[in-house]
Amino acid sequence: MISPFARIDPDARIGKNVTVGDFTVVHANVVLEDGCTIDSHCIIGYPTPLAEEMPLRVGPGALIRSHSVLYAGTTIQERLSTGHHVVIREKSLVGRQCQIGSYTELQGDLEIGDYTRTQSSVFIPKHSHIGRAVWLLPRVTLTNDPHPPSDPGNLGVHIEDYAVLAADCTVLPGITIGTRALVAASSLVTRDVEPDTVVAGVPAKKRGMTREILLKDGSGESAYPWMRHFYRGYPEDLVNSWIKDYGDKNES
Amino acid sequence: MISPFARIDPDARIGKNVTVGDFTVVHANVVLEDGCTIDSHCIIGYPTPLAEEMPLRVGPGALIRSHSVLYAGTTIQERLSTGHHVVIREKSLVGRQCQIGSYTELQGDLEIGDYTRTQSSVFIPKHSHIGRAVWLLPRVTLTNDPHPPSDPGNLGVHIEDYAVLAADCTVLPGITIGTRALVAASSLVTRDVEPDTVVAGVPAKKRGMTREILLKDGSGESAYPWMRHFYRGYPEDLVNSWIKDYGDKNES
Amino acid sequence: MISPFARIDPDARIGKNVTVGDFTVVHANVVLEDGCTIDSHCIIGYPTPLAEEMPLRVGPGALIRSHSVLYAGTTIQERLSTGHHVVIREKSLVGRQCQIGSYTELQGDLEIGDYTRTQSSVFIPKHSHIGRAVWLLPRVTLTNDPHPPSDPGNLGVHIEDYAVLAADCTVLPGITIGTRALVAASSLVTRDVEPDTVVAGVPAKKRGMTREILLKDGSGESAYPWMRHFYRGYPEDLVNSWIKDYGDKNES
Repeated sequence: MISPFARIDPDARIGKNVTVGDFTVVHANVVLEDGCTIDSHCIIGYPTPLAEEMPLRVGPGALIRSHSVLYAGTTIQERLSTGHHVVIREKSLVGRQCQIGSYTELQGDLEIGDYTRTQSSVFIPKHSHIGRAVWLLPRVTLTNDPHPPSDPGNLGVHIEDYAVLAADCTVLPGITIGTRALVAASSLVTRDVEPDTVVAGVPAKKRGMTREILLKDGSGESAYPWMRHFYRGYPEDLVNSWIKDYGDKNES
Repeated sequence: MISPFARIDPDARIGKNVTVGDFTVVHANVVLEDGCTIDSHCIIGYPTPLAEEMPLRVGPGALIRSHSVLYAGTTIQERLSTGHHVVIREKSLVGRQCQIGSYTELQGDLEIGDYTRTQSSVFIPKHSHIGRAVWLLPRVTLTNDPHPPSDPGNLGVHIEDYAVLAADCTVLPGITIGTRALVAASSLVTRDVEPDTVVAGVPAKKRGMTREILLKDGSGESAYPWMRHFYRGYPEDLVNSWIKDYGDKNES
Repeated sequence: MISPFARIDPDARIGKNVTVGDFTVVHANVVLEDGCTIDSHCIIGYPTPLAEEMPLRVGPGALIRSHSVLYAGTTIQERLSTGHHVVIREKSLVGRQCQIGSYTELQGDLEIGDYTRTQSSVFIPKHSHIGRAVWLLPRVTLTNDPHPPSDPGNLGVHIEDYAVLAADCTVLPGITIGTRALVAASSLVTRDVEPDTVVAGVPAKKRGMTREILLKDGSGESAYPWMRHFYRGYPEDLVNSWIKDYGDKNES
């Protein structure tokens, strides 16, 4: 299951039932846990002095699609799934069962909570703090520098649990987006967003509460919190907690 | 013309005069027709159960540039040309003589008509329907989910023949963009766009008819329909039909 | 320092202390000067008739990160540093000590001055003219066609020295952005921008002078011109000239 056309450093620690594709490079300072699948043309454990000799740890059951680059010094919990051409730099802390879309870049020194999903071409710079079960749709851009170029200190964006940022949004440095909030497509977020609210526009303004948005399926039910109706790919115990906390629109 | 450093599955069906570059992987369930050129570092026929065992078919004369990934289950007519780092997923139907720019992703379960061109970093999700001779400029983002995350059903964007979407546009789910319409740069399209009209802004509003936009060459001629003056790379019989239908500004 | 798993054309001219990574392809018409480091999975000197047989010249000390494609016919001065998955096409003239972010594409027939830095996913089309020590933040999109599709002639964007374009900006064809100007995030630039001014919005409007923006560090000092406080990675003689011309906020 290790391609003879891959280049594996003999010091890499590789678990059971690991697959490594053709023309992939695995460096020394790497821990690939059991059941990981690494596609072809990847670089696993890209070396950098910024990793301060910490290894890349990839939790069990990961699926890393082709042409992706994962740096040394990053820690990823179990069952990460990535698209193609992903870059994840050093000192990224990535929770369990996250999904990272194609062409997405995590620039390192950042945290992403469990079950969070980015779609394609999302940009997440250093000092970003992203909670659990957040959704970042295609082309979301986070920032961290209030007056570029400068040394940005700690002005990363904070995104709280269950928030949704729609396609092509940009968020200014130091902004907090509250739990279960929704940022509409192509918005520029220049002020903090309160929990459970919808914002839209350039600059983004409050347009109401997320619960006012109805499902397009004619049910008359609210589309938010989305955890009432969208369960695909989440673990059963998590979905059960959502049903307990938010109800189930199928049973209302 | 097949690199000794490529990995070709012996079950792949490869036509005459096909070139495959170094470090490219060609899987089993692939039909590469005559005269295809596949650059280095590509994956051709990336396997997925979502392809339901349908092959990847690449029509004759394709040029697939480096680091691109084409999935099983997709059908491409003759003479596709791609940029670098392109991803085309399963069950994409791509017409003849299309051009797909670098970093563009086609997420599968979609249709693109003959002669359509995307430039760089265009994002086309599932259920998109794109007509013939459409232009999608850099960073155009289509969407398909009216209240993300949800199961999007059939809310893809429809783009009719000869429409032009300028750089950095985003189009909301279920929108129809009419034939020969023009969407100006950085617009967010939230309502259907009528044929032959220009829309601009966030949200996009109607600004007039395309025929009111004059060429910058001092000729005093209208820049639209663009088929009156821009022929580069289109086949002669198609250009002749344009001259018949729309006139030729060089002869007006 | 040349990987045995790289493919190097024997006619390539390779200087001293050059490193070439695994699965990288170096074509014939290439000059790699002393001390260049080329990561794995790159293509160096991608052939095209548009290069008119001019070589790719990469100046000394370059660092080209993985999965990047540099075309024949381009000339790069010393100490270029790129991210991953970069594309630089033919007849690009790139000055000394430039940085080009991951997923950035330079489409060729363009000029970039010394010390200029693009961050990730920047799009620079043909006929762009970019000065010295310019900053293009993530997802900046330049354009060159006033009524797409057409033959764009010479309607590239001009960006003068020390200008800063923040994340997700788009600039229309033929625009000039003056020296030391600042374009705020997510702006659409539709008119020329005067030197030392700030513009913002869709379309972008003048919001004031850059000197009115204060550093967030509580110093009460202006954040612009940025050359008064941000020196990281620039050569000492250049920084000394900035201190002479603009003062040093640490000594004011």
